Amino acid sequence: MYSLLIDSSNQPLSVALMKADQVVSTYTTAVKQNHSVQLMPQIASLLESAKITPQDLTDIIVAQGPGSYTGLRIGVTTAKTLAYTLSANLYGVSSLKALAATLPNSECILVPIINARRDHVYAGVYQWRGGQLQQLKADQYIAMTDLIAYVKTLTQVLFIGEDVRQFETQLKDFDLLPVLPRADAMWAHKGEPQNIHGFTPQYLKLSEAEQNWLNQQSSKTN
Amino acid sequence: MYSLLIDSSNQPLSVALMKADQVVSTYTTAVKQNHSVQLMPQIASLLESAKITPQDLTDIIVAQGPGSYTGLRIGVTTAKTLAYTLSANLYGVSSLKALAATLPNSECILVPIINARRDHVYAGVYQWRGGQLQQLKADQYIAMTDLIAYVKTLTQVLFIGEDVRQFETQLKDFDLLPVLPRADAMWAHKGEPQNIHGFTPQYLKLSEAEQNWLNQQSSKTN
Repeated sequence: MYSLLIDSSNQPLSVALMKADQVVSTYTTAVKQNHSVQLMPQIASLLESAKITPQDLTDIIVAQGPGSYTGLRIGVTTAKTLAYTLSANLYGVSSLKALAATLPNSECILVPIINARRDHVYAGVYQWRGGQLQQLKADQYIAMTDLIAYVKTLTQVLFIGEDVRQFETQLKDFDLLPVLPRADAMWAHKGEPQNIHGFTPQYLKLSEAEQNWLNQQSSKTN
Repeated sequence: MYSLLIDSSNQPLSVALMKADQVVSTYTTAVKQNHSVQLMPQIASLLESAKITPQDLTDIIVAQGPGSYTGLRIGVTTAKTLAYTLSANLYGVSSLKALAATLPNSECILVPIINARRDHVYAGVYQWRGGQLQQLKADQYIAMTDLIAYVKTLTQVLFIGEDVRQFETQLKDFDLLPVLPRADAMWAHKGEPQNIHGFTPQYLKLSEAEQNWLNQQSSKTN
Protein backbone atom coordinates (compact mmCIF):
# COMPACT_ATOMS: atom_id res chain seq x y z
CA MET A 1 0.00 0.00 0.00
CA TYR A 2 2.99 2.34 0.58
CA SER A 3 5.11 3.64 -2.30
CA LEU A 4 8.64 4.97 -2.02
CA LEU A 5 9.62 7.43 -4.76
CA ILE A 6 13.21 8.40 -5.55
CA ASP A 7 14.64 10.97 -7.94
CA SER A 8 18.42 11.21 -7.64
CA SER A 9 18.94 11.48 -11.38
CA ASN A 10 20.57 14.90 -11.17
CA GLN A 11 22.02 17.35 -8.65
CA PRO A 12 18.77 17.76 -6.69
CA LEU A 13 17.62 14.83 -4.59
CA SER A 14 13.92 14.22 -4.06
CA VAL A 15 12.32 11.39 -2.08
CA ALA A 16 8.70 10.80 -1.16
CA LEU A 17 6.58 8.32 0.72
CA MET A 18 2.99 7.84 -0.40
CA LYS A 19 0.07 5.76 0.84
CA ALA A 20 -1.91 4.83 -2.27
CA ASP A 21 -2.29 8.16 -4.11
CA GLN A 22 -1.77 10.31 -1.01
CA VAL A 23 1.54 11.94 -0.14
CA VAL A 24 2.67 11.03 3.37
CA SER A 25 5.97 12.95 3.44
CA THR A 26 8.34 14.35 0.87
CA TYR A 27 11.80 15.88 1.02
CA THR A 28 13.66 17.67 -1.75
CA THR A 29 17.06 19.31 -1.60
CA ALA A 30 19.30 21.12 -4.03
CA VAL A 31 22.23 21.18 -1.60
CA LYS A 32 25.32 19.89 -3.38
CA GLN A 33 26.00 16.68 -1.50
CA ASN A 34 26.71 13.11 -2.36
CA HIS A 35 23.48 11.25 -3.15
CA SER A 36 25.14 8.03 -2.02
CA VAL A 37 25.54 9.55 1.44
CA GLN A 38 22.17 11.28 1.60
CA LEU A 39 19.73 8.89 0.00
CA MET A 40 19.40 6.05 2.52
CA PRO A 41 19.20 8.29 5.63
CA GLN A 42 16.48 10.33 3.92
CA ILE A 43 14.53 7.17 3.07
CA ALA A 44 14.88 5.97 6.66
CA SER A 45 13.68 9.35 7.91
CA LEU A 46 10.56 9.22 5.70
CA LEU A 47 9.67 5.75 6.95
CA GLU A 48 10.23 6.79 10.56
CA SER A 49 8.02 9.85 10.17
CA ALA A 50 5.18 7.54 9.12
CA LYS A 51 6.07 4.92 11.75
CA ILE A 52 6.35 2.19 9.12
CA THR A 53 9.09 -0.28 8.24
CA PRO A 54 10.63 -1.08 4.84
CA GLN A 55 8.44 -4.22 4.77
CA ASP A 56 5.39 -1.97 4.42
CA LEU A 57 6.62 -0.77 1.02
CA THR A 58 4.80 -2.42 -1.88
CA ASP A 59 5.98 -0.13 -4.71
CA ILE A 60 9.29 1.49 -5.53
CA ILE A 61 9.24 4.23 -8.15
CA VAL A 62 12.48 5.71 -9.45
CA ALA A 63 13.51 8.39 -11.92
CA GLN A 64 15.16 6.29 -14.61
CA GLY A 65 17.03 8.98 -16.53
CA PRO A 66 18.33 10.77 -18.41
CA GLY A 67 20.66 12.57 -16.06
CA SER A 68 23.93 12.26 -14.18
CA TYR A 69 25.50 8.83 -14.63
CA THR A 70 26.42 8.59 -10.98
CA GLY A 71 23.12 9.93 -9.70
CA LEU A 72 21.17 7.54 -11.90
CA ARG A 73 23.22 4.54 -10.85
CA ILE A 74 22.71 5.35 -7.16
CA GLY A 75 18.97 5.86 -7.55
CA VAL A 76 18.34 2.87 -9.81
CA THR A 77 20.56 0.54 -7.79
CA THR A 78 18.90 1.54 -4.53
CA ALA A 79 15.44 1.12 -6.07
CA LYS A 80 16.27 -2.30 -7.55
CA THR A 81 17.81 -3.53 -4.31
CA LEU A 82 14.81 -2.42 -2.28
CA ALA A 83 12.32 -3.88 -4.76
CA TYR A 84 14.20 -7.20 -4.85
CA THR A 85 14.69 -7.62 -1.10
CA LEU A 86 11.15 -6.46 -0.25
CA SER A 87 9.43 -8.27 -3.16
CA ALA A 88 7.97 -4.90 -4.12
CA ASN A 89 6.95 -3.69 -7.56
CA LEU A 90 9.53 -1.57 -9.39
CA TYR A 91 8.56 1.28 -11.72
CA GLY A 92 10.65 3.74 -13.73
CA VAL A 93 9.68 7.23 -14.83
CA SER A 94 11.61 9.45 -17.23
CA SER A 95 13.48 12.16 -15.31
CA LEU A 96 12.23 14.66 -17.88
CA LYS A 97 8.61 13.53 -17.58
CA ALA A 98 9.05 13.75 -13.80
CA LEU A 99 9.81 17.46 -14.19
CA ALA A 100 6.79 18.03 -16.44
CA ALA A 101 4.69 16.14 -13.89
CA THR A 102 5.40 18.82 -11.27
CA LEU A 103 3.19 21.28 -13.20
CA PRO A 104 -0.19 19.54 -13.56
CA ASN A 105 -2.66 21.19 -15.95
CA SER A 106 -0.12 23.74 -17.11
CA GLU A 107 -1.43 25.73 -20.05
CA CYS A 108 2.10 25.82 -21.52
CA ILE A 109 3.98 23.40 -23.73
CA LEU A 110 6.58 22.14 -21.26
CA VAL A 111 10.18 21.60 -22.29
CA PRO A 112 12.08 20.01 -19.39
CA ILE A 113 15.83 20.24 -19.90
CA ILE A 114 18.85 18.76 -18.15
CA ASN A 115 22.32 20.08 -18.94
CA ALA A 116 24.36 17.39 -20.74
CA ARG A 117 27.45 19.66 -21.18
CA ARG A 118 29.10 20.81 -24.45
CA ASP A 119 26.04 22.88 -25.43
CA HIS A 120 23.85 19.80 -25.40
CA VAL A 121 20.90 18.99 -23.22
CA TYR A 122 18.60 16.11 -22.46
CA ALA A 123 15.15 17.34 -23.37
CA GLY A 124 11.62 16.23 -24.09
CA VAL A 125 8.51 18.15 -25.07
CA TYR A 126 5.33 17.59 -23.04
CA GLN A 127 1.84 18.99 -22.91
CA TRP A 128 -1.10 18.56 -20.53
CA ARG A 129 -4.34 17.80 -22.34
CA GLY A 130 -7.52 17.08 -20.41
CA GLY A 131 -5.63 16.26 -17.26
CA GLN A 132 -3.26 13.85 -19.04
CA LEU A 133 0.43 14.45 -19.63
CA GLN A 134 1.22 13.81 -23.30
CA GLN A 135 4.59 13.65 -24.98
CA LEU A 136 5.02 15.75 -28.14
CA LYS A 137 8.68 14.91 -28.71
CA ALA A 138 10.61 11.94 -27.33
CA ASP A 139 13.23 12.46 -24.64
CA GLN A 140 16.58 12.86 -26.35
CA TYR A 141 20.15 14.07 -26.22
CA ILE A 142 20.14 17.15 -28.43
CA ALA A 143 22.21 20.23 -29.25
CA MET A 144 20.71 23.33 -27.62
CA THR A 145 20.66 25.09 -31.01
CA ASP A 146 18.65 22.24 -32.55
CA LEU A 147 16.23 22.24 -29.62
CA ILE A 148 15.69 25.99 -29.90
CA ALA A 149 15.09 25.72 -33.66
CA TYR A 150 12.41 23.09 -33.01
CA VAL A 151 10.79 24.92 -30.12
CA LYS A 152 10.50 28.13 -32.16
CA THR A 153 7.83 26.35 -34.23
CA LEU A 154 5.66 26.03 -31.09
CA THR A 155 3.67 28.59 -29.11
CA GLN A 156 3.48 29.25 -25.36
CA VAL A 157 6.56 27.28 -24.48
CA LEU A 158 7.93 27.02 -20.94
CA PHE A 159 11.43 25.64 -20.38
CA ILE A 160 11.56 23.95 -16.99
CA GLY A 161 14.09 22.35 -14.66
CA GLU A 162 16.80 23.72 -12.42
CA ASP A 163 19.26 23.79 -15.33
CA VAL A 164 17.34 26.53 -17.20
CA ARG A 165 19.37 28.93 -15.03
CA GLN A 166 22.51 27.84 -16.91
CA PHE A 167 21.00 28.69 -20.30
CA GLU A 168 19.43 32.06 -19.54
CA THR A 169 21.30 33.81 -22.34
CA GLN A 170 20.48 31.26 -25.04
CA LEU A 171 16.86 31.01 -23.86
CA LYS A 172 16.28 34.74 -23.38
CA ASP A 173 13.31 34.72 -25.81
CA PHE A 174 11.47 32.06 -23.79
CA ASP A 175 9.74 31.73 -20.42
CA LEU A 176 11.80 29.77 -17.91
CA LEU A 177 10.76 28.10 -14.66
CA PRO A 178 13.59 26.54 -12.63
CA VAL A 179 11.49 23.88 -10.92
CA LEU A 180 13.09 21.17 -8.82
CA PRO A 181 11.93 17.58 -9.28
CA ARG A 182 9.37 16.41 -6.70
CA ALA A 183 9.44 12.66 -6.31
CA ASP A 184 5.74 12.43 -5.42
CA ALA A 185 4.81 13.90 -8.82
CA MET A 186 6.04 10.65 -10.46
CA TRP A 187 3.32 8.57 -8.85
CA ALA A 188 0.60 9.22 -11.43
CA HIS A 189 3.02 8.46 -14.27
CA LYS A 190 4.59 5.24 -13.03
CA GLY A 191 3.13 3.00 -15.72
CA GLU A 192 3.56 -0.77 -15.43
CA PRO A 193 5.81 -2.72 -13.05
CA GLN A 194 9.17 -3.55 -14.61
CA ASN A 195 11.35 -6.64 -14.48
CA ILE A 196 13.67 -5.91 -11.58
CA HIS A 197 16.79 -7.58 -12.90
CA GLY A 198 16.49 -6.19 -16.41
CA PHE A 199 15.85 -2.65 -15.23
CA THR A 200 18.58 -0.18 -16.25
CA PRO A 201 19.02 3.59 -16.30
CA GLN A 202 18.04 5.35 -19.52
CA TYR A 203 21.16 7.38 -20.17
CA LEU A 204 20.14 8.39 -23.75
CA LYS A 205 23.82 8.92 -24.44
CA LEU A 206 26.94 6.86 -24.04
CA SER A 207 29.41 8.05 -21.43
CA GLU A 208 32.57 9.63 -22.81
CA ALA A 209 34.61 6.59 -21.81
CA GLU A 210 32.24 4.24 -23.62
CA GLN A 211 32.21 6.48 -26.70
CA ASN A 212 36.02 6.63 -26.74
CA TRP A 213 36.24 2.87 -26.44
CA LEU A 214 33.79 2.40 -29.32
CA ASN A 215 35.78 4.88 -31.43
CA GLN A 216 38.99 2.96 -30.70
CA GLN A 217 37.42 -0.36 -31.66
CA SER A 218 36.06 1.17 -34.82
CA SER A 219 39.45 2.63 -35.84
CA LYS A 220 41.14 -0.75 -35.14
CA THR A 221 38.87 -2.59 -37.55
CA ASN A 222 39.24 0.04 -40.30
CA MET B 1 19.82 36.19 1.59
CA TYR B 2 18.16 33.03 3.01
CA SER B 3 14.40 32.74 3.45
CA LEU B 4 12.63 30.34 5.77
CA LEU B 5 9.09 29.45 4.69
CA ILE B 6 6.51 27.85 7.00
CA ASP B 7 3.02 26.54 6.32
CA SER B 8 1.51 24.91 9.40
CA SER B 9 -1.91 26.42 8.81
CA ASN B 10 -3.61 23.03 8.47
CA GLN B 11 -2.99 19.33 9.02
CA PRO B 12 -0.07 19.11 6.58
CA LEU B 13 3.18 20.77 7.58
CA SER B 14 5.47 22.25 4.96
CA VAL B 15 8.77 24.03 5.54
CA ALA B 16 11.33 25.27 3.04
CA LEU B 17 14.68 27.00 2.98
CA MET B 18 15.49 29.17 -0.02
CA LYS B 19 18.53 31.17 -1.09
CA ALA B 20 17.14 34.18 -2.97
CA ASP B 21 14.65 32.61 -5.42
CA GLN B 22 16.27 29.15 -5.36
CA VAL B 23 14.96 26.30 -3.25
CA VAL B 24 17.68 24.86 -1.02
CA SER B 25 15.62 22.17 0.74
CA THR B 26 11.96 21.57 1.40
CA TYR B 27 10.04 19.10 3.53
CA THR B 28 6.31 18.45 3.53
CA THR B 29 4.37 15.92 5.55
CA ALA B 30 0.74 14.95 5.92
CA VAL B 31 1.45 12.68 8.88
CA LYS B 32 -0.93 13.53 11.69
CA GLN B 33 1.41 14.87 14.32
CA ASN B 34 1.59 17.88 16.52
CA HIS B 35 3.00 20.86 14.60
CA SER B 36 4.30 22.28 17.89
CA VAL B 37 6.48 19.18 18.25
CA GLN B 38 7.51 18.88 14.60
CA LEU B 39 8.08 22.42 13.43
CA MET B 40 11.29 23.50 15.18
CA PRO B 41 13.19 20.23 14.60
CA GLN B 42 12.27 20.41 10.90
CA ILE B 43 13.51 24.01 10.70
CA ALA B 44 16.74 23.02 12.45
CA SER B 45 17.16 20.12 10.03
CA LEU B 46 16.75 22.40 6.98
CA LEU B 47 19.36 24.83 8.30
CA GLU B 48 21.75 21.97 9.08
CA SER B 49 21.37 20.51 5.60
CA ALA B 50 22.54 23.83 4.16
CA LYS B 51 25.22 24.28 6.84
CA ILE B 52 23.86 27.67 7.86
CA THR B 53 22.74 29.14 11.18
CA PRO B 54 19.52 30.98 12.08
CA GLN B 55 21.48 34.25 11.84
CA ASP B 56 21.78 33.67 8.08
CA LEU B 57 18.01 34.02 7.70
CA THR B 58 16.95 37.43 6.36
CA ASP B 59 13.32 36.65 5.52
CA ILE B 60 10.61 34.64 7.27
CA ILE B 61 7.53 33.82 5.20
CA VAL B 62 4.52 32.20 6.83
CA ALA B 63 1.09 30.98 5.74
CA GLN B 64 -1.14 33.45 7.56
CA GLY B 65 -4.48 31.66 7.28
CA PRO B 66 -7.21 30.75 7.01
CA GLY B 67 -6.92 27.33 8.58
CA SER B 68 -6.69 25.50 11.88
CA TYR B 69 -6.60 27.92 14.83
CA THR B 70 -3.90 25.94 16.58
CA GLY B 71 -1.83 25.36 13.46
CA LEU B 72 -1.97 29.03 12.54
CA ARG B 73 -0.98 30.17 16.01
CA ILE B 74 2.02 27.84 16.04
CA GLY B 75 3.19 28.92 12.58
CA VAL B 76 2.60 32.63 13.04
CA THR B 77 4.09 32.70 16.55
CA THR B 78 7.18 30.81 15.43
CA ALA B 79 7.58 33.11 12.42
CA LYS B 80 7.14 36.29 14.50
CA THR B 81 9.57 35.10 17.16
CA LEU B 82 12.21 34.20 14.57
CA ALA B 83 11.75 37.47 12.69
CA TYR B 84 11.99 39.50 15.91
CA THR B 85 15.01 37.75 17.39
CA LEU B 86 16.88 37.63 14.07
CA SER B 87 15.84 41.11 12.88
CA ALA B 88 14.55 39.43 9.74
CA ASN B 89 11.72 40.57 7.47
CA LEU B 90 8.36 38.94 8.10
CA TYR B 91 5.88 38.19 5.32
CA GLY B 92 2.45 36.56 5.32
CA VAL B 93 0.79 34.68 2.48
CA SER B 94 -2.82 33.48 2.40
CA SER B 95 -2.99 29.72 3.02
CA LEU B 96 -5.40 29.48 0.08
CA LYS B 97 -3.17 31.48 -2.25
CA ALA B 98 -0.31 29.22 -1.12
CA LEU B 99 -2.22 26.23 -2.47
CA ALA B 100 -2.95 27.97 -5.79
CA ALA B 101 0.74 28.87 -5.98
CA THR B 102 1.68 25.19 -6.13
CA LEU B 103 0.21 24.98 -9.67
CA PRO B 104 2.01 27.68 -11.67
CA ASN B 105 0.57 28.44 -15.11
CA SER B 106 -2.40 26.15 -14.59
CA GLU B 107 -4.94 26.52 -17.36
CA CYS B 108 -7.73 25.98 -14.81
CA ILE B 109 -9.57 28.37 -12.55
CA LEU B 110 -8.25 27.23 -9.18
CA VAL B 111 -10.51 26.94 -6.16
CA PRO B 112 -8.41 26.07 -3.09
CA ILE B 113 -10.57 24.88 -0.22
CA ILE B 114 -9.95 24.13 3.44
CA ASN B 115 -12.59 22.29 5.46
CA ALA B 116 -14.08 24.62 8.09
CA ARG B 117 -16.59 22.01 9.38
CA ARG B 118 -20.41 22.18 9.41
CA ASP B 119 -20.58 22.08 5.59
CA HIS B 120 -18.54 25.27 5.37
CA VAL B 121 -15.12 25.82 3.83
CA TYR B 122 -12.51 28.50 3.59
CA ALA B 123 -12.15 29.15 -0.12
CA GLY B 124 -10.81 31.62 -2.65
CA VAL B 125 -10.89 31.65 -6.43
CA TYR B 126 -7.63 32.15 -8.31
CA GLN B 127 -6.44 32.17 -11.90
CA TRP B 128 -3.03 32.31 -13.55
CA ARG B 129 -2.82 34.94 -16.27
CA GLY B 130 0.42 35.63 -18.10
CA GLY B 131 2.48 34.03 -15.38
CA GLN B 132 0.77 36.03 -12.60
CA LEU B 133 -1.56 34.60 -10.00
CA GLN B 134 -4.73 36.69 -9.85
CA GLN B 135 -7.57 36.51 -7.36
CA LEU B 136 -11.10 36.31 -8.82
CA LYS B 137 -12.91 36.01 -5.48
CA ALA B 138 -11.61 37.01 -2.06
CA ASP B 139 -10.72 34.34 0.49
CA GLN B 140 -13.77 33.74 2.65
CA TYR B 141 -15.64 31.47 5.02
CA ILE B 142 -18.51 30.16 2.92
CA ALA B 143 -21.16 27.43 2.89
CA MET B 144 -20.19 24.68 0.44
CA THR B 145 -23.57 25.00 -1.31
CA ASP B 146 -22.99 28.74 -1.87
CA LEU B 147 -19.49 28.09 -3.18
CA ILE B 148 -20.75 25.45 -5.61
CA ALA B 149 -23.53 27.77 -6.84
CA TYR B 150 -20.91 30.43 -7.58
CA VAL B 151 -18.40 28.08 -9.17
CA LYS B 152 -21.05 26.68 -11.53
CA THR B 153 -20.98 30.05 -13.31
CA LEU B 154 -17.30 29.45 -14.21
CA THR B 155 -15.65 27.10 -16.68
CA GLN B 156 -12.69 24.74 -16.32
CA VAL B 157 -12.65 24.81 -12.55
CA LEU B 158 -10.24 22.74 -10.46
CA PHE B 159 -10.85 22.35 -6.73
CA ILE B 160 -7.51 21.92 -4.95
CA GLY B 161 -6.17 21.14 -1.51
CA GLU B 162 -5.97 17.99 0.56
CA ASP B 163 -9.50 18.57 1.89
CA VAL B 164 -11.13 18.01 -1.53
CA ARG B 165 -11.06 14.31 -0.57
CA GLN B 166 -13.64 15.05 2.13
CA PHE B 167 -16.07 16.63 -0.35
CA GLU B 168 -15.88 14.11 -3.18
CA THR B 169 -19.64 13.51 -3.18
CA GLN B 170 -20.63 17.18 -3.20
CA LEU B 171 -17.96 18.00 -5.79
CA LYS B 172 -18.57 15.01 -8.06
CA ASP B 173 -19.24 17.29 -11.07
CA PHE B 174 -15.86 19.01 -10.77
CA ASP B 175 -12.21 18.15 -11.23
CA LEU B 176 -10.36 17.71 -7.95
CA LEU B 177 -6.64 17.74 -7.21
CA PRO B 178 -5.71 16.96 -3.59
CA VAL B 179 -2.44 18.93 -3.58
CA LEU B 180 -0.50 19.44 -0.38
CA PRO B 181 0.86 22.91 0.37
CA ARG B 182 4.52 23.42 -0.55
CA ALA B 183 6.10 26.15 1.52
CA ASP B 184 8.55 27.15 -1.23
CA ALA B 185 5.64 28.05 -3.54
CA MET B 186 4.84 31.01 -1.26
CA TRP B 187 8.09 32.79 -2.06
CA ALA B 188 6.95 34.50 -5.26
CA HIS B 189 3.77 35.71 -3.53
CA LYS B 190 5.20 37.08 -0.31
CA GLY B 191 4.38 40.74 -1.00
CA GLU B 192 5.72 43.43 1.34
CA PRO B 193 7.36 42.99 4.76
CA GLN B 194 4.85 43.29 7.60
CA ASN B 195 5.05 44.92 11.00
CA ILE B 196 6.20 42.07 13.24
CA HIS B 197 4.28 43.00 16.36
CA GLY B 198 1.03 43.80 14.59
CA PHE B 199 1.08 40.60 12.53
CA THR B 200 -1.81 38.22 13.31
CA PRO B 201 -3.34 35.11 11.73
CA GLN B 202 -6.18 35.69 9.27
CA TYR B 203 -8.79 33.32 10.67
CA LEU B 204 -11.63 34.71 8.46
CA LYS B 205 -14.02 33.37 11.08
CA LEU B 206 -14.36 33.71 14.84
CA SER B 207 -13.67 30.60 16.87
CA GLU B 208 -16.74 28.93 18.34
CA ALA B 209 -15.79 30.15 21.83
CA GLU B 210 -15.48 33.74 20.62
CA GLN B 211 -18.75 33.50 18.73
CA ASN B 212 -20.52 32.07 21.80
CA TRP B 213 -19.12 34.84 23.95
CA LEU B 214 -20.29 37.48 21.49
CA ASN B 215 -23.74 35.87 21.37
CA GLN B 216 -23.91 35.92 25.17
CA GLN B 217 -22.90 39.58 25.31
CA SER B 218 -25.44 40.39 22.66
CA SER B 219 -28.28 38.55 24.48
CA LYS B 220 -27.32 40.31 27.74
CA THR B 221 -27.72 43.75 26.21
CA ASN B 222 -30.99 42.88 24.50
